[in-house]
Amino acid sequence: MRPSQRRPDELRPVSFTRGFTRYAEGSVLVEFGDTRVLCTASVLPQVPPFLKGGGQGWLTAEYGLLPRATNERAQREAVRGKQSGRTLEIQRLIGRSLRAALDLTKLGERTITLDCDVLQADGGTRTAAITGAWLALRDAIAGLCQSGALPESPLVDQIAAVSVGLYRGIPVLDLDYAEDAAAETDMNVVMDASGGFIEIQGTAEQHRFSRAELDRLLDLAASGIETLHAQQRAALGLEEPPTPAPRGSTATGHESL
Amino acid sequence: MRPSQRRPDELRPVSFTRGFTRYAEGSVLVEFGDTRVLCTASVLPQVPPFLKGGGQGWLTAEYGLLPRATNERAQREAVRGKQSGRTLEIQRLIGRSLRAALDLTKLGERTITLDCDVLQADGGTRTAAITGAWLALRDAIAGLCQSGALPESPLVDQIAAVSVGLYRGIPVLDLDYAEDAAAETDMNVVMDASGGFIEIQGTAEQHRFSRAELDRLLDLAASGIETLHAQQRAALGLEEPPTPAPRGSTATGHESL
Amino acid sequence: MRPSQRRPDELRPVSFTRGFTRYAEGSVLVEFGDTRVLCTASVLPQVPPFLKGGGQGWLTAEYGLLPRATNERAQREAVRGKQSGRTLEIQRLIGRSLRAALDLTKLGERTITLDCDVLQADGGTRTAAITGAWLALRDAIAGLCQSGALPESPLVDQIAAVSVGLYRGIPVLDLDYAEDAAAETDMNVVMDASGGFIEIQGTAEQHRFSRAELDRLLDLAASGIETLHAQQRAALGLEEPPTPAPRGSTATGHESL
Amino acid sequence: MRPSQRRPDELRPVSFTRGFTRYAEGSVLVEFGDTRVLCTASVLPQVPPFLKGGGQGWLTAEYGLLPRATNERAQREAVRGKQSGRTLEIQRLIGRSLRAALDLTKLGERTITLDCDVLQADGGTRTAAITGAWLALRDAIAGLCQSGALPESPLVDQIAAVSVGLYRGIPVLDLDYAEDAAAETDMNVVMDASGGFIEIQGTAEQHRFSRAELDRLLDLAASGIETLHAQQRAALGLEEPPTPAPRGSTATGHESL
Amino acid sequence: MRPSQRRPDELRPVSFTRGFTRYAEGSVLVEFGDTRVLCTASVLPQVPPFLKGGGQGWLTAEYGLLPRATNERAQREAVRGKQSGRTLEIQRLIGRSLRAALDLTKLGERTITLDCDVLQADGGTRTAAITGAWLALRDAIAGLCQSGALPESPLVDQIAAVSVGLYRGIPVLDLDYAEDAAAETDMNVVMDASGGFIEIQGTAEQHRFSRAELDRLLDLAASGIETLHAQQRAALGLEEPPTPAPRGSTATGHESL
Amino acid sequence: MRPSQRRPDELRPVSFTRGFTRYAEGSVLVEFGDTRVLCTASVLPQVPPFLKGGGQGWLTAEYGLLPRATNERAQREAVRGKQSGRTLEIQRLIGRSLRAALDLTKLGERTITLDCDVLQADGGTRTAAITGAWLALRDAIAGLCQSGALPESPLVDQIAAVSVGLYRGIPVLDLDYAEDAAAETDMNVVMDASGGFIEIQGTAEQHRFSRAELDRLLDLAASGIETLHAQQRAALGLEEPPTPAPRGSTATGHESL
Repeated sequence: MRPSQRRPDELRPVSFTRGFTRYAEGSVLVEFGDTRVLCTASVLPQVPPFLKGGGQGWLTAEYGLLPRATNERAQREAVRGKQSGRTLEIQRLIGRSLRAALDLTKLGERTITLDCDVLQADGGTRTAAITGAWLALRDAIAGLCQSGALPESPLVDQIAAVSVGLYRGIPVLDLDYAEDAAAETDMNVVMDASGGFIEIQGTAEQHRFSRAELDRLLDLAASGIETLHAQQRAALGLEEPPTPAPRGSTATGHESL
Repeated sequence: MRPSQRRPDELRPVSFTRGFTRYAEGSVLVEFGDTRVLCTASVLPQVPPFLKGGGQGWLTAEYGLLPRATNERAQREAVRGKQSGRTLEIQRLIGRSLRAALDLTKLGERTITLDCDVLQADGGTRTAAITGAWLALRDAIAGLCQSGALPESPLVDQIAAVSVGLYRGIPVLDLDYAEDAAAETDMNVVMDASGGFIEIQGTAEQHRFSRAELDRLLDLAASGIETLHAQQRAALGLEEPPTPAPRGSTATGHESL
Repeated sequence: MRPSQRRPDELRPVSFTRGFTRYAEGSVLVEFGDTRVLCTASVLPQVPPFLKGGGQGWLTAEYGLLPRATNERAQREAVRGKQSGRTLEIQRLIGRSLRAALDLTKLGERTITLDCDVLQADGGTRTAAITGAWLALRDAIAGLCQSGALPESPLVDQIAAVSVGLYRGIPVLDLDYAEDAAAETDMNVVMDASGGFIEIQGTAEQHRFSRAELDRLLDLAASGIETLHAQQRAALGLEEPPTPAPRGSTATGHESL
Repeated sequence: MRPSQRRPDELRPVSFTRGFTRYAEGSVLVEFGDTRVLCTASVLPQVPPFLKGGGQGWLTAEYGLLPRATNERAQREAVRGKQSGRTLEIQRLIGRSLRAALDLTKLGERTITLDCDVLQADGGTRTAAITGAWLALRDAIAGLCQSGALPESPLVDQIAAVSVGLYRGIPVLDLDYAEDAAAETDMNVVMDASGGFIEIQGTAEQHRFSRAELDRLLDLAASGIETLHAQQRAALGLEEPPTPAPRGSTATGHESL
Repeated sequence: MRPSQRRPDELRPVSFTRGFTRYAEGSVLVEFGDTRVLCTASVLPQVPPFLKGGGQGWLTAEYGLLPRATNERAQREAVRGKQSGRTLEIQRLIGRSLRAALDLTKLGERTITLDCDVLQADGGTRTAAITGAWLALRDAIAGLCQSGALPESPLVDQIAAVSVGLYRGIPVLDLDYAEDAAAETDMNVVMDASGGFIEIQGTAEQHRFSRAELDRLLDLAASGIETLHAQQRAALGLEEPPTPAPRGSTATGHESL
Repeated sequence: MRPSQRRPDELRPVSFTRGFTRYAEGSVLVEFGDTRVLCTASVLPQVPPFLKGGGQGWLTAEYGLLPRATNERAQREAVRGKQSGRTLEIQRLIGRSLRAALDLTKLGERTITLDCDVLQADGGTRTAAITGAWLALRDAIAGLCQSGALPESPLVDQIAAVSVGLYRGIPVLDLDYAEDAAAETDMNVVMDASGGFIEIQGTAEQHRFSRAELDRLLDLAASGIETLHAQQRAALGLEEPPTPAPRGSTATGHESL
């Protein structure tokens, strides 16, 4: 039995609040149960030096945890003077995952920065962040298209993420903190709307997992992400899932994202 | 005419959401118009080295601004590797102001850390932070008293703060960003429930102010803070303003805070 | 009775040694009793990026304390790897205060850096620094005018600063360390030659002050600063206080500064 | 055709030089083709604060790249003042992977630090580092057992790692730099001697991978790691693969590692 | 002809102002011509961790340059966030040189920190610093002896330093900045009162020096240091040079230092 | 008797492995007994800002010690966040020494960075580094000449370095760690092929040295360096020592280097 009484394949209640803050081009508060992450997308008319003059855009992400987002107060990274290895690892993951949603050649020389700041942490902050950041990114892109800054949407895919793991030997979906702390194996999975894998990160410090367990975990992740994709679309008021366009082509279905 | 159409002596709409997050001993979202600050109070059973063994407690504060709390995205201080001079100045002010609310000798060897994180900034973040942090502090203290950890409340005063300034030559109360950016003179005032000054910080880079202007600004501040004190009490469900106890004595009226 | 036997309204002996070091465009050793601060003004033919191309100049300040300027040796900030919050707060105050002395539009694209290094600290280092830095600034500006680099002086005002506070309940002027450490309330005041306020920073961690006390403290500060202004002029060999020009206009009396 | 002319399932030539340097308790130069990593194991008779007094040991890893290990000189991290996100991510992976080889409760209050310094980089440095570090760890443990410091070996498993990826649409094993730079999908896999997964980290920034492709990549990884395990044992002069003991039990076969 | 019109073997005018500041246990302003260094000795009743409990003392040094000590303003190291390589090199040299003056076993578990802060730099700051720091050290030791804190003086030697170099092919003594900048070879020499070498640091980036040139430079240095030793003693009001005691023995002549 | 049984004037076995790694323009593993340093020379088509546009080149050096190069593991400087004073001092020495080998005006606007990374340390790492780095530099320069990038070699001298010291009162050559730790006096000497001194750095924290001892140490160093120069030439397959050209002229003998 899971601490939260959920079935093994049951997500926590998910909600998205678009426009949570007013200045960012996209701003979404995502909640996976008690995990709450504020995801903002900021558009800057510049690219990093290594891309200057190449005509394409860039997307990057930063992640932070408010000091008392957690049960015990954590030291503020700005006070400590550097970001931890965990923070860097997570923000690199968010950045890679969301870059997969864009055709950067259609963004122009712009940088989109996704800031994912955790207001309250109850496990799964990185997967909630990726899932919410996709919505914030989508809203920022929609704004660029509506204002005429972009003739065509560079958004080529829908991205969501979830964690899975072995809890007391049972594969479970969307671990909360109580499960995560006790999990023998933990895996974060990022997928697109057609079921392709963007990232898989599985760790088994305590109990290595077999190929059969891996298969079961991936099944769970795939079904959870399918639900999250539908919830993202519902938050946008769309009923049908968009058909992702092949990368680099002009996809007819994308404008709806 | 003020950009917000407010009268010169009119505060922005103020709201306090207690229990905004669940882990902190006190957690208050304070809003002064579009300025929104999450204030949490964390209790740690330890004091800094310079107080160890002295039997008294400590209170400190930290301040942060989410990167996209503002109109233009600011660099994350954790990435930059240090807190800015402005941040340090503000968090030192918050710490001094709230220490004035406590009789530290009655706190035991505990440290209370007030984290004030700005989710959205529209001017006056430091005064909103002080005003909200007082409520978070009060809730944390109440918890310590209710659990029996403290036999007597160390909370000896009620603290709130507001900004005043000369906008187009007119003294105005509670400046928002549009006014703040254009203000010739800017002053932050922190007061207790009996009208005593805790802090006054006035700056006139562009236009020095006369003694008469100073007097008018202090009048405005005093009336604004009186209203804020009433709103803090209303958020606690109290009807009557508490009578602040003389420092060091046992004040009968304080338990109600 | 004050530890120094001074009357409540009595400044410490003040002295200014112009040309204390030889390389800086302005170099003044200021002494307020045992507090000794070396203030140098350095002129650089550049402005920070945010002003580039705008035709105006800039003024900034830095503050430091030699490790053994104080009774107990303090850690060297260059070893610690960063400036403390106190240092940043003080140098920001010095910079704002002295910018008020200049019409930056008449400085050309130059930056003046005021370095205020405390050789010996006995309270009031920031107010001594501001008062001495004004003389160093004036000497640097005079050099620019004499060399023909500036057709007209950008120096539009005379600035001095002093601390006041409540010591054993009595308002006193120009606190030394013994008084400062014991003061219930401490206020730094910066004023121009016509009695306008540039900065007021009052703090009452231990004992909040009333409006009446504030009034008395400001009276003391105003009279102390009037004396400091006269002493600055005497150090320049001027007998009459200059009439400050309205900002932005060409003031006839300023060339004498 | 792979740039190196290898078959898709062919490892690069692998070699291990034990005792490459003389001071470390374990010191192994591992070569995967042109990738060369010096792995040392250092034993310290202390544990980090969070484990003090608990009777168990700890294992941690650090990773570095000599500035000219790569085709273009990289900035030295000690000069830059911090380790990059990539470095932190890699050393966290190495640490987690090798901790899986140990029963920390049998190590006593000791910390083993694995330093993996890349002398020459041609792709796959993290997997070579894990594979070589296991040998260095094993030699350090053997020394502790031989000296009588440890009554029983805490080494409970044999660990190796390899990268796999899609290169021009074809799943390939053990990518070198030329392949890695062009790979659409890249996955690092860490396994134990009985085929259990310790870590899977797959990334598909350019081309998401299907479940079928994932299966093929995992098959390749499993066969490559089986070979690496045999080569590790050959470097130790052992002929038969050891049977990994169940975690926490006393495994008879382990002394031979 | 030297820019300063000095003879090749002529020192600049040297002066020592003892008690330049009032808080330090020893405080000396040393001037070598226009080079002015404030040297303070601070006594702390503690030793660094690596000496704790060993019964002996320690001596360390720190060096700094006020930003406008030089002709062009240098960036403040506290702002830059670290000490430069040059600063570290100099303070290590000062520390080693002055440790040679002490029998640390007779100091008890105390640390003496020598802060050498350059108020004005015209070449030879490190040699002036060593020469002045010896006097500050001597005054601090004398205070410890007079107060009874030390039964016997740990000061076993008299230390001074000077620079020599080849200027336009001619060996010269005590280079000022104009000579130093143009010197082909530069050497700093530290000696004790009996003519023994403590440190020799010679650098010839532009023009390597021969053994014969080296000999001539060392002769110059020895004669210059002999004069500096006499001037140090004169500053103490002593007429006869003290006979340095053999290290570790109880020297009768030392109390006079 | 020396711990290593060597005669006082005997070097440790020296070896040079050219081309130790494959990417750097010059790559030499130098061994002085058990001291092993990897020296690489990297050529960058740029100069630092202070030389931009001047038409000349630059040479700089960096030094590092792998954490377990020594008997006790040292903290990684990249983790510590800064290079130690010792590291900075050594890399500045290497840079100055090797710049003496080049006529920078003939290098074009290029920077050569010499990275000296110590794989194993048994005393004398800085002198081994200088001696090995000269070979790496020479190979990099030869490559630039052969490719036609440089019409004429800027290499004007041959540089080597050795340590000498007083060990139990006896002058000895090329100290290993056991001798170095016990040495009363330690001196590093850098010389060119015609016996000119580039650098002398002698330190006598414990036992000052007399002029006669200095002379004997310099004799030892000169003879040791002569042997090292011959070994450098042998590693290049040259039989005759090259005649160093006068700086700034075109030296006929240099192409052979």
